[in-house]
Formats: sequence, C-alpha cells, structure tokens
Amino acid sequence: MPDFELGPNQYGKAETRLVRVERGADGDRLTDLNVSVALRGDLAASHLTGDNAAVLPTDTQKNTVFAFAREFGIASIEAFAVRLAEHFVATQPTIHEARVRIEQYPWQPVDGRHTFRRDASEVRTATVHHGPYGTQVASGVTGLVLLKTTDSEFHGYLKDRWTTLPETRDRILATSVDATWRTAAGFADPGPARAALVEAFADTYSYALQQTLFAMGSRVLERCPDVVEVKLSLPNRHHFPVDLQPFGLDNPDEVYFAADRPYGLIEGVVRRDGATVPQEVAWTF
Amino acid sequence: MPDFELGPNQYGKAETRLVRVERGADGDRLTDLNVSVALRGDLAASHLTGDNAAVLPTDTQKNTVFAFAREFGIASIEAFAVRLAEHFVATQPTIHEARVRIEQYPWQPVDGRHTFRRDASEVRTATVHHGPYGTQVASGVTGLVLLKTTDSEFHGYLKDRWTTLPETRDRILATSVDATWRTAAGFADPGPARAALVEAFADTYSYALQQTLFAMGSRVLERCPDVVEVKLSLPNRHHFPVDLQPFGLDNPDEVYFAADRPYGLIEGVVRRDGATVPQEVAWTF
Amino acid sequence: MPDFELGPNQYGKAETRLVRVERGADGDRLTDLNVSVALRGDLAASHLTGDNAAVLPTDTQKNTVFAFAREFGIASIEAFAVRLAEHFVATQPTIHEARVRIEQYPWQPVDGRHTFRRDASEVRTATVHHGPYGTQVASGVTGLVLLKTTDSEFHGYLKDRWTTLPETRDRILATSVDATWRTAAGFADPGPARAALVEAFADTYSYALQQTLFAMGSRVLERCPDVVEVKLSLPNRHHFPVDLQPFGLDNPDEVYFAADRPYGLIEGVVRRDGATVPQEVAWTF
Amino acid sequence: MPDFELGPNQYGKAETRLVRVERGADGDRLTDLNVSVALRGDLAASHLTGDNAAVLPTDTQKNTVFAFAREFGIASIEAFAVRLAEHFVATQPTIHEARVRIEQYPWQPVDGRHTFRRDASEVRTATVHHGPYGTQVASGVTGLVLLKTTDSEFHGYLKDRWTTLPETRDRILATSVDATWRTAAGFADPGPARAALVEAFADTYSYALQQTLFAMGSRVLERCPDVVEVKLSLPNRHHFPVDLQPFGLDNPDEVYFAADRPYGLIEGVVRRDGATVPQEVAWTF
Repeated sequence: MPDFELGPNQYGKAETRLVRVERGADGDRLTDLNVSVALRGDLAASHLTGDNAAVLPTDTQKNTVFAFAREFGIASIEAFAVRLAEHFVATQPTIHEARVRIEQYPWQPVDGRHTFRRDASEVRTATVHHGPYGTQVASGVTGLVLLKTTDSEFHGYLKDRWTTLPETRDRILATSVDATWRTAAGFADPGPARAALVEAFADTYSYALQQTLFAMGSRVLERCPDVVEVKLSLPNRHHFPVDLQPFGLDNPDEVYFAADRPYGLIEGVVRRDGATVPQEVAWTF
Repeated sequence: MPDFELGPNQYGKAETRLVRVERGADGDRLTDLNVSVALRGDLAASHLTGDNAAVLPTDTQKNTVFAFAREFGIASIEAFAVRLAEHFVATQPTIHEARVRIEQYPWQPVDGRHTFRRDASEVRTATVHHGPYGTQVASGVTGLVLLKTTDSEFHGYLKDRWTTLPETRDRILATSVDATWRTAAGFADPGPARAALVEAFADTYSYALQQTLFAMGSRVLERCPDVVEVKLSLPNRHHFPVDLQPFGLDNPDEVYFAADRPYGLIEGVVRRDGATVPQEVAWTF
Repeated sequence: MPDFELGPNQYGKAETRLVRVERGADGDRLTDLNVSVALRGDLAASHLTGDNAAVLPTDTQKNTVFAFAREFGIASIEAFAVRLAEHFVATQPTIHEARVRIEQYPWQPVDGRHTFRRDASEVRTATVHHGPYGTQVASGVTGLVLLKTTDSEFHGYLKDRWTTLPETRDRILATSVDATWRTAAGFADPGPARAALVEAFADTYSYALQQTLFAMGSRVLERCPDVVEVKLSLPNRHHFPVDLQPFGLDNPDEVYFAADRPYGLIEGVVRRDGATVPQEVAWTF
Repeated sequence: MPDFELGPNQYGKAETRLVRVERGADGDRLTDLNVSVALRGDLAASHLTGDNAAVLPTDTQKNTVFAFAREFGIASIEAFAVRLAEHFVATQPTIHEARVRIEQYPWQPVDGRHTFRRDASEVRTATVHHGPYGTQVASGVTGLVLLKTTDSEFHGYLKDRWTTLPETRDRILATSVDATWRTAAGFADPGPARAALVEAFADTYSYALQQTLFAMGSRVLERCPDVVEVKLSLPNRHHFPVDLQPFGLDNPDEVYFAADRPYGLIEGVVRRDGATVPQEVAWTF
C-alpha cells in the first residue's frame, strides 16, 4: 500500500439540544441551545489503526455539555462555549484545539411566570475556537429576515451579451441576515450589534445590496467599539412586480411575486482598519 | 379494458407566493401570502380522454390571485379566500366547488415607514370551501410554539406489560400549536381566538396534554361567541430531565434534553353544544 | 362555564424510528421504519378533568413498537401495522379504534453481506385502520419522482380574462407520485402496483396530467385484481423552456428552468366499479 | 465617520435550477443541475458608494448559465463549471476570480426512451475556483447514506469524569457520506472515486469511524492515480439497541432506535504524500 497522509481532521458531538430552566420567584428564565463540539489533537492513531486511546468519545462531550449547564450555569452562549472549549483542551492532553458552536433559540415570556412562546424570528450564534493561539470568539445572528418596500435602486451595472435585466429606480429589497462579528479579545454584548444591523438596513438608501452590506457592517463597528470585524452573508430574496397589463390592470409597485430560486448571494467582511485576520481561519473545514 | 370509475378529484395551483405593499404616508402595510387553490367540477373528460374543455388552467388561477390582489385588495386572508373561491365557481360553469387555502406570514414594522422584520414565530391560516353548500371559512394559526416550565403532571394512566414510563408530578410541557376554528357563518377576527389559545395554555394546570387541548378549545369558544368549533393538533415536544447522577450532580428540574422524535401527538375537536359538522369534510382528500 | 362538547379526538406516539436487522448466512436483511400510532376510545375524562385512567401512554405505544419487532418480526409493513393496531384495541378496553401509519425507507444491499446503501428515491407507506368496522389497509408509495421529456401536450382548455398561458403541443411532464391503494380485504403485494404506476406514467401519451393520473390509477387496477381503489396526488413540477432569443440562440426544447413554486396539484381517486367508500374516512382529521 | 475597510467579499447568483434534455434516437439524456456562481474582483465601489459600474448582475450570471447549456452543452459538471468560471473572469476586466458550484441530481432511465425516475440517493457535486492561481476543480458526492450491520467496534477510548458510554465490540455503523476530491490538474472521472468510497466503507472492519474515514480516503487515492486529496465529512448516525429486558425479551442485536440528534461528526482529509494545499482555501467564506 502506498503511504497516504492524514491532513487536517476533527471530530466531535454535533447538535446536542440542551434546555435549561432557572426557576425564580419573579418568573423563570429559559435557555434553549443547540451545541456542537469539534476537537483536534493527536488523532492520527484513531485514523490509521483504530486505536482510540487519544479519543474522548463524542458521547462524553454530550454529557459534559449537560453537566456543565448544571454545574456552572449559562451566563451567555459565548461564555458557555468558552468554558467548554477550554475544558476539553485543558483536561485532555491529547486534545489541542476545540471549536464550540452554539445556536440559541429565543423565547418570549408569556405570563411573566412559567410560560414562554418560541420566537422563531432569528437565532443567536456563538462560535469559539480555543487552542495554542488562545481563545477567539465570534458572535452572530442568523435567520433575521428584513425587507424594505422602497429606497432601493439598482442600475449602472455592467451589461454584456447575456444581460437582459432592466435597470430599476425602485424595488423591494429583502434578505435573510446571517452575520457574525468578533472583538479583539473576549466578546461583547450582542444586543447593540444586532440592533445596528437592523437599523442600518432600515435607514440606508440602497443602490446595491453590497452597499447595504457595507453599511450594516460599518454600523456595527460604529456602535460597538470592541468589535473589529463583521462578516455578512446576505441572500437577495427577489420580489418581482407582477405584470398585470394582460388583465387591463396597472401595478404601481403594489403586487409582487416572491421567488424562491435562484437568488443573489452577497457576502463580505467589514473590518476596523488594521484589524488582523484571526488564526483559526485554518479551522474552516 | 375493464371499466374503472373516477372518484373524488380536484386540481389547482398550489403555493402562489404573493406579496402586496400598500404604501401610505404613515408607513407601508405589508401582506405576505402563500395561496393554494383547488377546484372541483365537470372534470371527467380531462381524466378520461385528456379533453381539457372544462379545465381552467392552474396558471390562470395563479394570475387571478395576483390580479385580484390589485383589483380588490386583501382586507383579510379570509375575505380574500372567499372572493377567490366564489369567483372560480361563479364564472366557470364547469367548476362547482372551490377550496382556497392561504397562509399568511406576519411581519413586524421596524421603523414605521418602509422596513419590516419577518416574524417567523407563527403562521396565520384560512381555508375556504365554496360550493352548493354555501361558503365555509376556517381560520387558524400554525407553528405557534409554547412551553411551560412547570404546572404539568402526568400519572394515573393505564399500565400494561409494555409500560415503563415513570409517573411524574412535574414536567415541562411544550407543543407547537396547529389550530383551526370556524364560526356558524362568515368568519371572526382571529386575534381573540389566537390570544385565547395562548392564555389557556398558560393558565391551565395540566394533568394531560389532552386536558390542555380541551381547555384551549374551550377558551376560544368562551371568548369568541361566533366560533362554534375549534380543532387542535398538538405535538408533545418532549423535554427529558438529564440524569446527572453519574457525574455526582443532582438535577433539580433544571437541565433537559429536547428530543426530536418520537413525539406524542394529541388531536381533538372542541365544539359548542349542538354545532353541526360541516359538509365540506368530504373535501378532505 | 358554558358546556362545550368534545368532538372527534385521537392521540398516540408519532414517528418512532425503528430499524431491524435480520442476520443471515447469506446476507443480512435491513428494515428501516417510521411508525406512527393514533388511538381513539373512552378519552373524554382525560380531556375534561385530566383523569388518565383510560389512557395508554404514548411512551408505552413506542415500547410496544420496538418489542413487537423483536417478538413477531416484520413480515411486511402492512402486517406489522395490522398487528399493532389490533393489539391496542384488543388489549385495552378503553381503546376502540387504532390507526397505524408506517413509512419504510428502502436500502440496497452493497456487498450481499452486511453493508447497505439507502435508496432515498421513494418511501413505501402503509396505513391501517382497525375498529368496530374491521381492519382496513391502505398501501402506498410517496416521493417517487418521474419525468417525461416529451409525449405531453396541454391545450384546448378554458380561457378567461385572466388566462395568458400559451397552448403547448410538447412539454416536459414531471411529478412526485404520492399514491395509496387498497384491496377489498387484507392487502396485496405492493410491487406490482408500484410498477404499474411507473409503467403507465411512461407509456401514456398525455394531454393533461389528469389523464395521466387516471391512466396510472387504472393500470394499477388492471394489474392488481385485488386492488379496488387508488388515490393519487400529483404535483405538476413545472419545467419552463428558457427564452434564449435575447442571446441570439434558439432553444429547441433543450434548456429548461425547473421551478419551485407555484405548482399545479392534481389529485384524484380511481375505483373499480362498485367499490364502496371505506368507513374510516371519518378518521381523516 | 471612522474609516472602515472592506475585507474579502464575493457575490453571485445561487441555485439556478437548470435542466437540459438531449434528444436522441436511442433515448434521451437528462441533466438536472443546481448552479451557484460567486465572483470576486474590483467590487469596492459597489460596497462603498453603490456605484455598480464593475458589477455584472447576478441576473446576467443566471442567463449565462442557461445560454451556455445551449451553446456548449454539458459534457460534465466539472467541465461546465470550468467554462462558466473562466468566462466570467475572461470577459469582465473587473472580475478576477470566480467560483462555480454545481450539484447534479441523478435520474435513472425508465423505458430507454423519454421517461426517467429521479434517483434521490445521492447528489454529485463539482466546485471550481478560477483566478490568478489558475483553475482548481474539486469533485464530490453528498447525501450518500451507508450502513453496516456489524464489523464495527468502539472501545479503548479516553474515560474521564463525564464518560458513561459502555465499550462495544459490535455495533451498527451508519453515515451520510459528504466527500470531495481533487486532482493535481484538471479533474478525473468521478465514478471510480465514488465506487472506492462505498467499497472501502463496506470492507473495512472498523474500530472507529475515523479509521473508516481514512480507509475511504485512502481507497480513493489507490484507485484514482490522479487524485491527490480527499476530504470527508461523516456524521455518525447512531443506532442504539433497544433495551427489551423490561418486557422479558432479549435483543440479540436485532432491534434498534435510529436517533436524530445529537450525532457524532467525523471530518478529515487524506492526501497523497507531498500534495500541496491549494490556494483557493482563502475563498472559503
């Protein structure tokens, strides 16, 4: 057999669905998480010979997630992810790096006591990388769907043989925001960043979704002094005005068809000047 | 060839994604719908020989949905569905019955002007049947996820050879409400019915999800004098307390595993006494 | 409190994911099922007062599914569903009717020994109703996607003010078959019915998807003497020829856009003459 | 306003659903694709001021996908992606890099003429990066679900305070293969690589899913001399033996519960010795 080489590799338990209830006289607090752990380290033997002496089972990782929720609580998804990531590296000599991703599903209190309503409008996220390079935290939000009925134009673009799109001075602009941001060290309260995203989407007169993207990222950097980088992935959810002329009707930007596919996808990073690219990009698998 | 018979049949355009913007000085109004039409009538020839002389194309049905949004507006999904259903039957001699189902996706205003945020927490529904029996309207809500951290017990049930479930005096109760309701004639404002469902879930001390279901349906009937029947489908979204004893930890109803499958599914109808079962049940395909 | 009435109701454990391995010298046999149970009976007290004395827990139903797979094996999903449905009614005096729905996910042997590849192209289904009316079995297949590149026309249809669809003498016809069929008593081998559906779709020159539907149902009745009724739900998965003229290209029925929504939905029943409508239609919730 | 910097960015049209029919006397050939384009280049102005002079609209990219299918045909998804990627860079001075990802949905001929059945068991993929570094092609397969009923053990792993998993000498091993591979230049026929993955899964006696992963990657490298690197992402689809002892039944590795979440996730790269890491990793967004 020829010699082959094991390249980058990782393993872990994905999507542990943890719900924690803090019971209080002034109403309960509900934390609803989806936790995914990935570990790197001295894992060659497991791949080459099936020798698992260096492998902490993914089942153990799941147990640890549940046990830590009880033992230490969940101050924030960022803090909980940091604790978990540091734990695996600190306690297992064979594990050198850990990535912990958490999705948080928000709930709204209904009666101020024991009842909650799931707020499915968005998901809060945190991704922590921990390793020899230290601890890096990215906070984010995903699934936040925004729409503007006007104040969006699109024209002046390149035209080649394959271009048929008419220029427009007024269109609906809609997207599902998938954003992450990071601070130089530690992490920041995600509330202001999330609010800045919505606010900038709303008050930016847009000539391109790219422009809106940059405005959204810049607004986060303006409002959150600790944030050094914002990454945005913005699908352009097309809404096409329906041609009603065949029916003897006009359509003064009133009736639209909401298309599923295809869709534009605009992605970009906005950085504070001089911000350095973090190390763990090599983790991206 | 032996003679075979064409039984119940229907056809139509499903999932027309219509968005309507009403532009106003005091902020726009956004209506985001998914409209599905099904028609019944003299459709035997189309099935038996491919003679389509009695068939109104589904593409035409889609066009009609868009055009009617412009021509008549959308006062409510119930009214819009009634108008569409009546139109197809009134204008096409070959079409004798119509069912129109509409899902409405709520949006929250962001700036009181042009920007909206999708509220994915629930979907409003309306289903209209129109035919020789008149016009019947069912309003509803689906995807409304509710959870109680306590005030739920489950015990005293049947036990046989296959029963291992321990009785419990305190558990999380969670469900995703799928509810429809109907009035004796016309339709009612869905707001009070939706509010009654949430309220009854919250304030009912529950010994069974069945009991909660009946309480939710009854509350709608109490609060909405025009409503005569409520139908509820309530999956029991199990949250299991995690056994932390192997780790030397107690778990005082704090840390839970949210399970995906299997799940209990509790379904039932609550009626005002003497309410008659509507005719169009035969439509259920 | 006014008196309200409990209407039709049912409960049970949905989506128990059961995998059974029969180990044999000539290769293993793999059965991969999703089992959903619903029960009806003397369930008023549970709804009205939370008294569960008549309630067999859904957890017990799940246990029974697993235990019966070991105790009795799974000769077919129809036979397994019948056994389960009869069991709950026979052993629990408070339970009078049972419905058991099973989805079966096919797997293909890879090496004739222990390895299998999931065949995700279709799902086999069985639905059994058992009650005072006896035992009724519906077999089916769902998710079977078929496409014809030609031999499909659509013209001669009704045209009204809202019609813009051009007639066509040649189009792609594609659908995702969702079919169920039933015999007068017991159930039949589903293989010939499934084959008849595919064969009739392939060799029917189509002037309407309705015509194809009737041909598919009729073919099942021809080939399967025990089958008395076939129910078909056929979404029309539209494939639109792309207009390439703006680019100086023709498009001789070669390049198509596969649309997601909206879609036509054609549904119908084909029956052997004189077949009676089964009782359990009242179960449809 | 403080100065912020635009970091890595890209845009394009995602998920263009293209179906092509080649009509032939000996039966048609059907190609069913989902094409996603992303472009990089001089896009700062679009972000900073909304000046789109350097932006080729995503609508044009969609048109190009359809037109190229007619003009040049689709010899393979790799070749089609290369042609598209090179086109955008070659013809637009403002575009410097292109990534084209294609998913191909297989269909099986039914009658050797015009009818096909969708084979949903797996999806073929190709991802092409084109830029100053040349053209790099990754071929792949995703959604290929494999299961072994035996010949899988798991023991000898690390145990800490949080470990409760019992060691096992016999378990079901199941996964959904997501694999990509690349050659040093150009691309190879994907058939042998796909076959090698299945074969190695089947005939590797497994002490860890990591070991199976390495065996699968190695087998591809053995069988495909042009392939230099294989990347695998293998979820561990847990099948837990059901404890039937409470019911007085044994369970000799026969009845299993197929769990949804959480699941192990094993990911790794297997390389021919000396293979260099490709440049476009920086594209991973």
